[in-house]
Amino acid sequence: MSSSAKLIEIDPAFVEKTIMELASFGAVGETGVSRTVYSPEWVAATDYYAKACAEAGLDAYRDAVGNVWGRLRGSAAGNVVASGSHIDSQTPGGRYDGALGAVAALIALKALKEHFGTPKRTLEAVAFCEEESSRFPNANYWGSRAVTGRIAVDDPENVIGFGGETIAEAMRSVGLDPARIPEARRNDIDSFVELHIEQGPILEQADLPVAIVDAITGIRHYRAEISGVQNHAGGFPMDIRHDPMAGFAEIVSGLINTAHRVGRPAVTTVGRAIVEPNFPGIIPAKVEFTIDARHPNSAARIRLYETHERLMREVADRRGLTLDWRVMIDHEPSPSDPAIVKTLRRVASEQGVPVMTMASGAGHDSQQMAAIAKVAMIFVRSKDGRSHTPEEFSSIEDIVAGIRVLAAGLHALAY
Amino acid sequence: MSSSAKLIEIDPAFVEKTIMELASFGAVGETGVSRTVYSPEWVAATDYYAKACAEAGLDAYRDAVGNVWGRLRGSAAGNVVASGSHIDSQTPGGRYDGALGAVAALIALKALKEHFGTPKRTLEAVAFCEEESSRFPNANYWGSRAVTGRIAVDDPENVIGFGGETIAEAMRSVGLDPARIPEARRNDIDSFVELHIEQGPILEQADLPVAIVDAITGIRHYRAEISGVQNHAGGFPMDIRHDPMAGFAEIVSGLINTAHRVGRPAVTTVGRAIVEPNFPGIIPAKVEFTIDARHPNSAARIRLYETHERLMREVADRRGLTLDWRVMIDHEPSPSDPAIVKTLRRVASEQGVPVMTMASGAGHDSQQMAAIAKVAMIFVRSKDGRSHTPEEFSSIEDIVAGIRVLAAGLHALAY
Repeated sequence: MSSSAKLIEIDPAFVEKTIMELASFGAVGETGVSRTVYSPEWVAATDYYAKACAEAGLDAYRDAVGNVWGRLRGSAAGNVVASGSHIDSQTPGGRYDGALGAVAALIALKALKEHFGTPKRTLEAVAFCEEESSRFPNANYWGSRAVTGRIAVDDPENVIGFGGETIAEAMRSVGLDPARIPEARRNDIDSFVELHIEQGPILEQADLPVAIVDAITGIRHYRAEISGVQNHAGGFPMDIRHDPMAGFAEIVSGLINTAHRVGRPAVTTVGRAIVEPNFPGIIPAKVEFTIDARHPNSAARIRLYETHERLMREVADRRGLTLDWRVMIDHEPSPSDPAIVKTLRRVASEQGVPVMTMASGAGHDSQQMAAIAKVAMIFVRSKDGRSHTPEEFSSIEDIVAGIRVLAAGLHALAY
Repeated sequence: MSSSAKLIEIDPAFVEKTIMELASFGAVGETGVSRTVYSPEWVAATDYYAKACAEAGLDAYRDAVGNVWGRLRGSAAGNVVASGSHIDSQTPGGRYDGALGAVAALIALKALKEHFGTPKRTLEAVAFCEEESSRFPNANYWGSRAVTGRIAVDDPENVIGFGGETIAEAMRSVGLDPARIPEARRNDIDSFVELHIEQGPILEQADLPVAIVDAITGIRHYRAEISGVQNHAGGFPMDIRHDPMAGFAEIVSGLINTAHRVGRPAVTTVGRAIVEPNFPGIIPAKVEFTIDARHPNSAARIRLYETHERLMREVADRRGLTLDWRVMIDHEPSPSDPAIVKTLRRVASEQGVPVMTMASGAGHDSQQMAAIAKVAMIFVRSKDGRSHTPEEFSSIEDIVAGIRVLAAGLHALAY
């Protein structure tokens, strides 16, 4: 790896123009974007991205699943250094989640080509077709998963949209042949660096524009059900109730207090609860609820889950309630490549961009790409930590700082 | 009041036969009953009740709202001593809730007439037409409320069934004229004694067949809403969340612990909760919930509510959450007449029926009747405290014990 002593300059006006133009495809209200995979807005956005790659001097092409790539061919042999993120959005989301990483990659490559000419290793920018599961709830990183070759033969017929359509039908409607998805597989990518908005408030709290991401958190979703004895709210004394709402409340407090005490970056959320029969004057029969618990360290993650499960069992036993749970999602943490993290920290310092290192609490395409390449991520500060809403916002100043770190990092990896 | 030294005998076989025959109207499965006011099953049940009154030697008649009365005329002037309960049911409920009190009244009067002849005061048995709100959610004690003259002129058009029909339409469909409801008003009732199943487990726990009810509990329903800041479950550290689920859980535990610590007969129930947006991976924006809190002592009731409200405010303030609530229902406790309670305790002892005194945690027709008469209630032990279900059950032995106390009490009041 070579070092770039030179300051990399990025034109803020061009960055803003590109973000705004891309945000026009699927625009909702003032600042919202609703752009689901394989929709007409999505087609227009990918066309725009391919054209922007070409205008930046990259060789633009589409793969079999609909990802758009822009290639800057290197002078030497060796695997590719790639960067990018997804071009689909929540319904509605904002202008930055995903789209910013795709834009940042092409602008970084444009700047590198202009300032440093042909790289040694081939560089590629990419706009992945799908990451949000906002049209197909079980798409599960459709774009980057195709690149890793992990889409099974029958997935295209089994991934069903909220509107009932298969993802195979959606692909055919935009001229893509689901049978050819395996052709999107890459085995020539050495490193993948993804820039993304933080989607949390940690950078804002730390008063820093940019973070280097050293891991994507591990996550487990439980679906739990706590049952007691349904009875009349008036006739049953407190001391002989088997009230699942009382057990649920104690468990929720216990889980949240545990994660709080473990401290950052542990998080535990009870986001969903369904009470039965859910009448004011009846002691409930049961409460169904979910637990989302995350930690980026494998051992600490398992300790967190064991503590949660012990607490739930203890409360249910003590209160004479019946408790069942199932694990619905269980993803190991995805650590970044330590050498790339070190490189990104170094080039950030060289570029005069103050950074911190943090784990990502959300999932990203990078954790798919980790199956075939060394990965790392760069986070840009989010206003109020908001995302998945039209209110999500990152300043152009922070975005430019992030792109400068990305470009310097890609320079270090490819020149 | 005269005392009855003589043991009153009640034929268990006749009691069981009458309960089972009445339960055949609207029978559901083995032991269930679904009999809503003004339904064909209800018409058949009231016909049966009127016939049973006549066979018992009572003058049977129906009032303008559809209550069925059976009168045993007294020899002296003076207001009436009445007993009874409602003949409608939950959908499905069991054989005993309400129906038992109507049956008990007519069997008690039959026994008194057979053993003691004509009373001084006129005695009446009654089957009120509606108490359960199981067809019309805002019927609000339709039968007994008509007797107290508290049904407003426009109520018949404003009480709407789950099926969209007005209670006026339902009355006309069974030959009753809603305009004549005021004619059901009574101003000649001195005392009203209602026998009912306990609907709770207190007698079972105390190993006693019968209780004398010294008050019907006061009840308040709150509808509350606690709001925080919706955010991504992965991106937001625990220490800076405004998670309304955490506040909700702490409040529920606090309310339940408070009622538990206050001790019997205080009860507090959170039976209903709605989470928004209710997704596993999203810190909720808000939780709506209900609080049902009851106490039969006026001052203790208010102290319970003040403690609850103080706790809710404290939790919300400390956690940076927004909390609003509205009081949806607020009923004062309805104390029984102390002299009748004393009489019932005395005659129970004379009849050799061991009793305890307790408050009713549920609402009953008696609390309506208290507006025009001195009231008291007799509870019969419920198996497992169950009610509002086909599983509700009271043994014939316990029921006979309850009817003997009722009959002896009516004897003391009317002979």
